[in-house]
Amino acid sequence: MPAFTEAVERLRPVDHEAAGAAEARQAQLTKPPGSLGRLEAAAIRLAAIARRSPPPVPASTAVAVFAADHGVWDEEVTPWPQEVTAQMVANFCAGGAAVNVLARQVGAEVVVVDVGVAGDVPPAPGLRSSKIRRATANLRREPAMTVTEAGEALDCGAALAGELVDGGARCLLTGDMGIANTTASAALVAAASGRPASEVTGRGTGIDDDRLKHKIEVVDRALERARRAGELDDPLRRLASLGGLEIAALAGFIVGGAAAGVPVVLDGFIAGAAALSAVGLAPLCADYLFAGHRSSETGARVALETLGLEPLIDLDLRLGEGTGACLALPVLQAAARLLGEMATFDSAGVSRESS
Amino acid sequence: MPAFTEAVERLRPVDHEAAGAAEARQAQLTKPPGSLGRLEAAAIRLAAIARRSPPPVPASTAVAVFAADHGVWDEEVTPWPQEVTAQMVANFCAGGAAVNVLARQVGAEVVVVDVGVAGDVPPAPGLRSSKIRRATANLRREPAMTVTEAGEALDCGAALAGELVDGGARCLLTGDMGIANTTASAALVAAASGRPASEVTGRGTGIDDDRLKHKIEVVDRALERARRAGELDDPLRRLASLGGLEIAALAGFIVGGAAAGVPVVLDGFIAGAAALSAVGLAPLCADYLFAGHRSSETGARVALETLGLEPLIDLDLRLGEGTGACLALPVLQAAARLLGEMATFDSAGVSRESS
Repeated sequence: MPAFTEAVERLRPVDHEAAGAAEARQAQLTKPPGSLGRLEAAAIRLAAIARRSPPPVPASTAVAVFAADHGVWDEEVTPWPQEVTAQMVANFCAGGAAVNVLARQVGAEVVVVDVGVAGDVPPAPGLRSSKIRRATANLRREPAMTVTEAGEALDCGAALAGELVDGGARCLLTGDMGIANTTASAALVAAASGRPASEVTGRGTGIDDDRLKHKIEVVDRALERARRAGELDDPLRRLASLGGLEIAALAGFIVGGAAAGVPVVLDGFIAGAAALSAVGLAPLCADYLFAGHRSSETGARVALETLGLEPLIDLDLRLGEGTGACLALPVLQAAARLLGEMATFDSAGVSRESS
Repeated sequence: MPAFTEAVERLRPVDHEAAGAAEARQAQLTKPPGSLGRLEAAAIRLAAIARRSPPPVPASTAVAVFAADHGVWDEEVTPWPQEVTAQMVANFCAGGAAVNVLARQVGAEVVVVDVGVAGDVPPAPGLRSSKIRRATANLRREPAMTVTEAGEALDCGAALAGELVDGGARCLLTGDMGIANTTASAALVAAASGRPASEVTGRGTGIDDDRLKHKIEVVDRALERARRAGELDDPLRRLASLGGLEIAALAGFIVGGAAAGVPVVLDGFIAGAAALSAVGLAPLCADYLFAGHRSSETGARVALETLGLEPLIDLDLRLGEGTGACLALPVLQAAARLLGEMATFDSAGVSRESS
């Protein structure tokens, strides 16, 4: 894992001095203390990440959409055909998916990475072919991938993050595509949070009660299998056992972005599972993360709570792809911009409240 | 009230046929049904307002910041000096306030209107002087303004909305400034919702427990006074009795925007009080409103519930000025853009779920 290992070694704690300076600056701006709510804390965290106050506005951004298929699809956890993953990759490359529309609006570059789509994906502009294997194995019955394959996915993600930041990106957004990936994510979130499958397994694309019951059982069995095999104690083995190739790549991407010193905006449930894996592997990356939104997928709340993150957007989205991260980007930019551009009480000649 | 009366006469119901077409289009887009959450309903409402599907992206926008002072300031409901209203107006005109920063980010024009600031406000670019009187009277002891003055404020707001839409704005955002205006707003929201003062009166800029208790009592007394005078039964008399000049102007602005056929994005608590007044005066305007955010001010939740609106942003802001409306604008634009630009299952060749 050269790229991933290197990223972990480069990771450093965020700068608490810059955070302190940002906090002091907040108190000088022409507004009642605290009246910008959670934007104030976001700006302070951006300063800590950027190591200066006020922090730069994260204007140049990229969203990486990692795509892969899942062997657990065989368990009939979703009514969607597996070929939809490859079809949606083509849709991303053609610019017609929701994430493309939102990325255009916020000016984010879209990079699509095939790390394990089952079918063949024709070459297209903006598509990276980094197929590690054609779909994972069925995690209900065996480890989803080998530790070596998980490492390759981590490398792929970390390398892309480094490349994008080298290319000028100052904020990275996570995206994902993979039919059945809420099943793998539920298993990972259950394992990381200690919560039962029933609390973290949701309806994904919108399954009915019977299929949800079945899906919970699949996650339960997968957890039981992994536990017996001793695969839950080590974060890398856990990721290989229960993960997806796109989830492992995302975990690498998150650590890579943090190592490069930029904020990483998480999309929804899949990103939450990836972030929990990333934090397990490289705890210092946690301070570089922002939760773009709270997906309406059942386990998203648990993932965010376990990560200790509050979402910037909360509109009942459950699409993935990076849509929630794109939607949140202007909020994060606003937080930085306010801290940098607002007048102070002194500069504007505005009186303060009497004590 | 020529401008306001004319607006009320021009108001027409939104177009349910366009809404139906938008809803049908949502089902064709390459995403699981419902997976864009509340963005889907927002896009459908935008189509109903624009009378076509997909609706145009509301790209050209303006935020009107109406400023005025409040006689109830004499009751010591806030620790901030009254002169801050005039000072902040100067700050808006100089581009240094939070609303200026956010409006720049989203490309919204800022128009500042003095409808009743107590002190003199020096002329400045972007400032409209439409002072109706120097602050309202103390609503705890007498009607805040005459019905004629309230009508002038309604006219001022309605005329500005019409002018901005004539000038090309396709979405209007509400903004406000007025030391002590959460007291007037609390009284209006209590009167409109039937809830007691204690449930709708909050800490405003951040007052302590003792002053909050006092502020609730002031609102209670004002409501009692107005009730005895029979001023609560008619929406115009109620607005004159308990309102503020900027709140009445905002109510006119809301009705004017709706009459001109554009969506109006409400800022926080003051805007909620103005919207309740607007809906009381011209019920059809309700369907043109979006709640930009949910202010952390106590009564904001009640105002939105009474209006039947769910907020687009929920980040504990309580600054006013139009900040929450500006922050929400990209979300509304995203909703329209997704409906207009996403590929359909057929056009992208993506398979659907099996039933």
